[in-house]
Amino acid sequence: MLEVDLGQVIKMVTISVDRLRKIGKAIFTKAGVTDEEAEVLTDALLTANLSGVDSHGFGIIPGYLRHIKAGEWKSGQHAEIVHETSVIARIDGHEGIGELIAKESMEVAIRKAKENQVSAVSVFNCNHVGRLGYYTLMAAQQDMIGMMMCSTGPGVAPHGGVERVLGTNPISIAIPGKEFIFFLDIATSYRAAGWAREAMFKGEKIPVGWMISDKGQPVTDPSVKFLQPPDKSAALTFGGYKGYGLSLAIDILSGCLSGDGSTIFMHRSGRHEHNPLFISVINIAAFTPVHDFKERVEYLFKAVKNSRKAPDVEEILIPGELELRAWKKRSREGIPIHEKIWEEVALEARKLGIDLEKIK
Amino acid sequence: MLEVDLGQVIKMVTISVDRLRKIGKAIFTKAGVTDEEAEVLTDALLTANLSGVDSHGFGIIPGYLRHIKAGEWKSGQHAEIVHETSVIARIDGHEGIGELIAKESMEVAIRKAKENQVSAVSVFNCNHVGRLGYYTLMAAQQDMIGMMMCSTGPGVAPHGGVERVLGTNPISIAIPGKEFIFFLDIATSYRAAGWAREAMFKGEKIPVGWMISDKGQPVTDPSVKFLQPPDKSAALTFGGYKGYGLSLAIDILSGCLSGDGSTIFMHRSGRHEHNPLFISVINIAAFTPVHDFKERVEYLFKAVKNSRKAPDVEEILIPGELELRAWKKRSREGIPIHEKIWEEVALEARKLGIDLEKIK
Repeated sequence: MLEVDLGQVIKMVTISVDRLRKIGKAIFTKAGVTDEEAEVLTDALLTANLSGVDSHGFGIIPGYLRHIKAGEWKSGQHAEIVHETSVIARIDGHEGIGELIAKESMEVAIRKAKENQVSAVSVFNCNHVGRLGYYTLMAAQQDMIGMMMCSTGPGVAPHGGVERVLGTNPISIAIPGKEFIFFLDIATSYRAAGWAREAMFKGEKIPVGWMISDKGQPVTDPSVKFLQPPDKSAALTFGGYKGYGLSLAIDILSGCLSGDGSTIFMHRSGRHEHNPLFISVINIAAFTPVHDFKERVEYLFKAVKNSRKAPDVEEILIPGELELRAWKKRSREGIPIHEKIWEEVALEARKLGIDLEKIK
Repeated sequence: MLEVDLGQVIKMVTISVDRLRKIGKAIFTKAGVTDEEAEVLTDALLTANLSGVDSHGFGIIPGYLRHIKAGEWKSGQHAEIVHETSVIARIDGHEGIGELIAKESMEVAIRKAKENQVSAVSVFNCNHVGRLGYYTLMAAQQDMIGMMMCSTGPGVAPHGGVERVLGTNPISIAIPGKEFIFFLDIATSYRAAGWAREAMFKGEKIPVGWMISDKGQPVTDPSVKFLQPPDKSAALTFGGYKGYGLSLAIDILSGCLSGDGSTIFMHRSGRHEHNPLFISVINIAAFTPVHDFKERVEYLFKAVKNSRKAPDVEEILIPGELELRAWKKRSREGIPIHEKIWEEVALEARKLGIDLEKIK
């Protein structure tokens, strides 16, 4: 498949979901994690690709392998509840594979909310968990509202500052609707590194207000090597002081409540990037019949979608719609992946003694 | 007191907190609400003024009196729990005075979180509650994390749209720190009506991206009579699609979960503006010793405040700092109020047979 974009030719390879699943499991298993971990890792990345969120898909495999190889991420660990009541849990992730720890932690939150209507779970010693939407979706699929947030590594300046003391500190909220699952899954920063790369491909500049240099000047050059020394630029929070306030609240609820400490504390303590989590699940049926709830949500979505559009806007979208469309299309047609990214994955596989050509 | 601002002379009157409290209680009691309701209404508005949030202070008294006089807000009502477990409650506000209903509902949420670590409370039939921070503060003062959000009246366009189908749908999160309470209290729209008035005073334009005409053009003229027919302009969500997603999530958690329905459903059903609430309280001590938590929060705040500033930025602020400073100053020196706003309040008082000059 060839995509021609603004004079640039970006070669894409398209790979079926089944084949990608086999490839992911083979690579992670060979890298030394358990079958269960390889399964969850592969499913989490594949779900990101299926949803159209390629930044969290198979392209991050080389980075993941580095962490596993370095021993920063430990195989064979599970989410251990160190303290709990019927509605809350404090969980130790034991430096395990983040995706498995986060999945098990969300399962705890869902079970408690199912039995006792609402739950709050705090997780420490948790490595990179990938896309938060992977876990909040689990709650929504069981007719509950799932919320997850986490602290990350430092890359974002506070409002009025230029230094990287905050993380991208994302939040996800998934809510079951009648036709599809509403799906908020946002960083509290403007998109940075990944977006800059994309902008460079397209020959676009980074919009003013998204990134700032350490001298306080806007960074608009998409070739900036964000977070790679000697680069000192910082991403900015979305929506100015409001996104900044939200970012701080997330850092506190995730980092400070779990005991790991905030993004900047973890960084200055010399720890590698962690994702301390705050999870909350709400059982809709405790408040209102699920059917009625979904009807009310549907009414809202229809009113929004049918409302008058701005010129040049073809459709007003509800968060979650694009993900569902990508899912339907890609399940059928396969996942398009940048050729260069695929070459990197193949190289990593070869190092582990796997020939991707032989996995059909 | 006289403030000279960009060539405009805005006369201010400064009134002591004690006198304002007496005046508020006298006005509301004469308007026909109970002593308890007059007390809470006055305290809520006064707290907004003390915190420097004048948009939700004594200036809204004339509007409040209209709702009470019209019988839309009913005196003598209380938050009635129609369904509860040890951690959740569904509350009927019985069209009462919103401030009292919200306060009583937050008390329910705090009590449950105190006894059972976390709580979630959903409130329907609730009138205008004013500033959400008034209630989340109650939780933070008891070493808990307080969160509240609500649907409002329609005034905001969805991302890509021009029609007012969403409310300003605010969220507040209050978190106890060592030196002060962290205090997020934001609408998911950019400031609109109130800000436009302020911009007009200052001779400034409304920034592009904050408001949109029904033809999809930016509205920058601060003299726009927002929400007054025939005006059809809409406020935009802060931070584009991210603020929009948050606004939808809040409309669902507040309006759809409570049973009132979303902002647009309530509006199209011909109901006056309601504030269905979603409240959640988290007991910090259930997860970590409160002292340790506050130390971690303090570390984060210090790192943020001491980080390198952008040129022309004098200080990096933590949400809640300005409120505390305003509180200290205004408790001592009194509350400055625009003379015109004060004249309106005095006029309303006179209609009720109260001579403000006689209240010292």
